[in-house]
Amino acid sequence: MGNVQPFISVLTIGDELLSGDVTDLNLSTIAKAIGETGFDIKKQVTIGDNLAGIANSITNLCGESDVLITTGGLGPTSDDLTREAVSFAFGRPLVFREELAKLIEDFFGSLGRNMSPENLKQAYIPEEAKVIPPAGGTAPGFIIEHEGTMIACLPGVPREMKSMLINNVIPEIKKRHVCSSFKITREILTFGAGESDIANMLKTLACNQEVSYGFLAWEGIIKVKISAEARSKEEAQRILDLEEMKVREALGPLVFGVDGESMEEVVSKLLLKRDKTISVAESCTAGMVSSRIANVSGSSSYFKGGVVTYSIDSKRSILGISREILSRGVVSKEVAEAMATSVKKIFDSDIGLGITGVAGPKSIENKAPGTICIGLATPEEVFSWEIRFPGDRNFVRRIASTAALNAIRLSLIS
Amino acid sequence: MGNVQPFISVLTIGDELLSGDVTDLNLSTIAKAIGETGFDIKKQVTIGDNLAGIANSITNLCGESDVLITTGGLGPTSDDLTREAVSFAFGRPLVFREELAKLIEDFFGSLGRNMSPENLKQAYIPEEAKVIPPAGGTAPGFIIEHEGTMIACLPGVPREMKSMLINNVIPEIKKRHVCSSFKITREILTFGAGESDIANMLKTLACNQEVSYGFLAWEGIIKVKISAEARSKEEAQRILDLEEMKVREALGPLVFGVDGESMEEVVSKLLLKRDKTISVAESCTAGMVSSRIANVSGSSSYFKGGVVTYSIDSKRSILGISREILSRGVVSKEVAEAMATSVKKIFDSDIGLGITGVAGPKSIENKAPGTICIGLATPEEVFSWEIRFPGDRNFVRRIASTAALNAIRLSLIS
Repeated sequence: MGNVQPFISVLTIGDELLSGDVTDLNLSTIAKAIGETGFDIKKQVTIGDNLAGIANSITNLCGESDVLITTGGLGPTSDDLTREAVSFAFGRPLVFREELAKLIEDFFGSLGRNMSPENLKQAYIPEEAKVIPPAGGTAPGFIIEHEGTMIACLPGVPREMKSMLINNVIPEIKKRHVCSSFKITREILTFGAGESDIANMLKTLACNQEVSYGFLAWEGIIKVKISAEARSKEEAQRILDLEEMKVREALGPLVFGVDGESMEEVVSKLLLKRDKTISVAESCTAGMVSSRIANVSGSSSYFKGGVVTYSIDSKRSILGISREILSRGVVSKEVAEAMATSVKKIFDSDIGLGITGVAGPKSIENKAPGTICIGLATPEEVFSWEIRFPGDRNFVRRIASTAALNAIRLSLIS
Repeated sequence: MGNVQPFISVLTIGDELLSGDVTDLNLSTIAKAIGETGFDIKKQVTIGDNLAGIANSITNLCGESDVLITTGGLGPTSDDLTREAVSFAFGRPLVFREELAKLIEDFFGSLGRNMSPENLKQAYIPEEAKVIPPAGGTAPGFIIEHEGTMIACLPGVPREMKSMLINNVIPEIKKRHVCSSFKITREILTFGAGESDIANMLKTLACNQEVSYGFLAWEGIIKVKISAEARSKEEAQRILDLEEMKVREALGPLVFGVDGESMEEVVSKLLLKRDKTISVAESCTAGMVSSRIANVSGSSSYFKGGVVTYSIDSKRSILGISREILSRGVVSKEVAEAMATSVKKIFDSDIGLGITGVAGPKSIENKAPGTICIGLATPEEVFSWEIRFPGDRNFVRRIASTAALNAIRLSLIS
């Protein structure tokens, strides 16, 4: 066990990555998870599905690495060659593992499907490897040791890869290597102002020598990244806790969450805390707001349901909005308020949300693409907003659904 | 000038890529552009901003490559080290290029800004390199020759990188290497069977020497990738057209599309072609199916709308499903059929879809997480299916929404 930074490298395997058909997202996941342990990735290589190329890359990377993580090539088909390449590179024959064959067979059984014989290929693992059982699919991973290097071979499917990385690989790395300085990064999530406005509001804070600042815009959300380096995780965390407080003070209700939190998770917590139920009437977003509320496990305790009144007819027949109101324009604050009030009544919820707008690419009734009206009916009042977002049809719909969730959040914290 | 496939590799430079803060998109751009010339990328390496690491990677990749393209590390700051690394790796001093200094100064002038002295760093280029003038920014690229390998160093900014790649690098590669064969790839998209089943059904076809097969699983969709290599693009295309026909024949209705097509686009085309309207009643997917239908521009002509009856109460009050049916279990084919029939009537559409299930993580009424029931009401008949998908809550919901759209597709092509 050493306390010098280990050389950690990643080998990404798959023709689809070198043909440009698929963009690899695993490197970023691995880098972030490894970063949290205080270590970092020194090198990454992408290689196609050919035995000699994979075996060569494994041999070369092993020569310079303390830890090598490979992703991909563990499926059941003929172009899945990682098992064979490891076997070839280290001269360790593949051994049939009865217990794995059983797990794979059980997986198919649980889905009521028959296993095809090809899948048994996945039960062959290089000699003396430590097996990582399949994580939600049929592909097992494995960890092998060769001349002081730890090699972890994981499937390419991001979900399965991540599960094995967190549960099996990182604990194993921590057993072997101890970290001496920790850099921690935190993302403070904001919605409702632009990147340069946010940067401007934090100008004085960003002069702090202990903390470095970065900004990242993503679908209307501006992420303020603050990083601190210290001798212990706790010390770095303490610096960031203090800095986060200052950022929150400077930005007020623009801040909705931290790190991986989604807007729907934040809204969910607030609805639970305030003991309020909600229902949603959508036009342009067409179910996206409802679907995002239901993303959160346990949402059935506050989410009553919703309607997607995509056609004008259905706004009248289902929500009972009068011809008169609709004739003045379907994309209006008036209609959004009527949608909110009506859906609240239909589902007998505490809060009703209405959203209507022009997703594009064409204008509707002289309203430009990107125009969105949001209405909110609470037990006390009815509010509405009209906003315009730039971007193409589905970008506008996604930002509009975030804005709608944000409107619910603002009403719950006020 | 050879007519053997050149070994082309890519070196991606930048700490931000190895920390997981940024996902590299340049590899995919380069791979696609190189792919169109008939060549392909054999290997890709990512390395951080350190001189020795970059120089080493350049030396090693040059040893095995005919062409090496590097991206990143050409900016004006102290962590931009590609120029120095190339100089170090090949023993070629950096030379100040008057004409480049002038171009960079002019760039700032055109923005009405003063150039900071740091930017002059970008006017130093390794001896005997061919300069590529800045493309929209201040970073010049360059091409250098070393022991038969062509090395092109491009900036990391995607827009600038792409412009230099297309206008300067690819023409240079074409001068040196003649493509005697073109390789084209097509993805045939299937839904409804597993990867190994699909591979098994295509076993005989996959023996064809002219066409190579690959398989890729993504959220329940199995992509069959067929590639053909021929002396001309047209010839390769003709081979794939023939092969696609055979694949379609072997897989029948499992095939839903080709290349970038989404399930909702396919369903959309079929609804338009058959002149049918649709409405949707959702429980576990909670608006996801509706939202996906509305992803397609022009959907208002066939999509009437939907309801999200997330609570049991709303299944009764809004859809009018009897207490008796609901008391036998909310996740059942019977309820899915009742949802489909009712929503079809409420929205007066030709087709009604109902979907209810257990997204998870908990079971409902003894039904395991991942159990989904889909009901479809057409003018002629009412169908239903019960399926079980593995995976976490939102993975199940996404696959279930694809399965629901697929059910619509199957009813429209039968």
